Amino acid sequence: MDELIRQVREFAEDRDWDQFHSPKNLSMALSVEAAELMEHLQWLTEDQSRQPDQKLLERIKEEIGDVQIYLARLADQLGIDPLEAAREKLKQNEVKYPIETSRGSAKKYDEL
Amino acid sequence: MDELIRQVREFAEDRDWDQFHSPKNLSMALSVEAAELMEHLQWLTEDQSRQPDQKLLERIKEEIGDVQIYLARLADQLGIDPLEAAREKLKQNEVKYPIETSRGSAKKYDEL
Amino acid sequence: MDELIRQVREFAEDRDWDQFHSPKNLSMALSVEAAELMEHLQWLTEDQSRQPDQKLLERIKEEIGDVQIYLARLADQLGIDPLEAAREKLKQNEVKYPIETSRGSAKKYDEL
Amino acid sequence: MDELIRQVREFAEDRDWDQFHSPKNLSMALSVEAAELMEHLQWLTEDQSRQPDQKLLERIKEEIGDVQIYLARLADQLGIDPLEAAREKLKQNEVKYPIETSRGSAKKYDEL
Repeated sequence: MDELIRQVREFAEDRDWDQFHSPKNLSMALSVEAAELMEHLQWLTEDQSRQPDQKLLERIKEEIGDVQIYLARLADQLGIDPLEAAREKLKQNEVKYPIETSRGSAKKYDEL
Repeated sequence: MDELIRQVREFAEDRDWDQFHSPKNLSMALSVEAAELMEHLQWLTEDQSRQPDQKLLERIKEEIGDVQIYLARLADQLGIDPLEAAREKLKQNEVKYPIETSRGSAKKYDEL
Repeated sequence: MDELIRQVREFAEDRDWDQFHSPKNLSMALSVEAAELMEHLQWLTEDQSRQPDQKLLERIKEEIGDVQIYLARLADQLGIDPLEAAREKLKQNEVKYPIETSRGSAKKYDEL
Repeated sequence: MDELIRQVREFAEDRDWDQFHSPKNLSMALSVEAAELMEHLQWLTEDQSRQPDQKLLERIKEEIGDVQIYLARLADQLGIDPLEAAREKLKQNEVKYPIETSRGSAKKYDEL
């Protein structure tokens, strides 16, 4: 991840793109890429989405790459480590969704 | 990243959530979390978004964690490594956005 | 629609919110509200989403209201009539998706 | 609006698309279209977004049309009138954001 963050930073610096890369703008780009990923799956059934053919899988992989790139860039601009942020959130979720009461239910803890 | 992917997988398995975690559903959750991140920045100016106070930064960090978690989970369900996907996309972008013609311009290469 | 647009305009003017209502910011707010709507449906099956209970239906109605409000406001800021824009797009779609070749297929015309 | 809703319904029925138009799927399509609209504005400054040239304005109008179409279709599938939903939400917002305390502030009422 550290290497990716550094590569994305260099990519942006080489092109003098820091001026466009405010956290506000990067959050928009992140949402746009997440939507492009979703677009590939919107008319599929859930089962179909679990078994994409090779061509679709390749497109999805590209979009996952885009989302990861913008997430790394946004986090870097704010001095945040995305993996550390994820680990901390996962710990919070373990409290929020106890195994016993959450098993097999997609309901949020505060709605149980 | 490998460790995060494994932790998220165990978190889902412990709660029997694989049934909800189709790529289709996970792409929706990813978009929703990206939007929640964006919500914190939508009424700020770009400059303000570059200098969040500690409270806002903490909230943004949580949302970055959420996006990273769902991205890792979605990639895992499809057998994709998000960091490898990002590196490959970055290579494509180096061809798509040559330094010389892209410097200081946010225009897409195909619009130049 | 004209009445709604006027009401939303007055609502914003009364609060001196025009300064925040740039098309850029409104497009973010529109995406955020669309995501909040989607959040209510993300863990449901398609069949479940066709038969929401009264409580869920009420929540969805509120989010549809939010999306419509921001869409009207964004269109108004740019001098666009959303209903006319929709009618024109529908005409384009009739050419793009001919009945004969589109029947029962969710594929995009350019992918057929 | 009633006429648009009827036209969109006929468009879908002619193509036998009701099978794809579950509220879940339509909420995804709505979010995707909202993101495509936002994509046109993500690298612009707020001021630039207030003064789009004719070409950009035309593209934005098409995306506004797409969002309005999917919003009308989603509301129709659930028996909701989008304009009535917007009017009711606007009434709630008048209570939530009193003129006196909201003037010139983008903060949410519950954060004031």
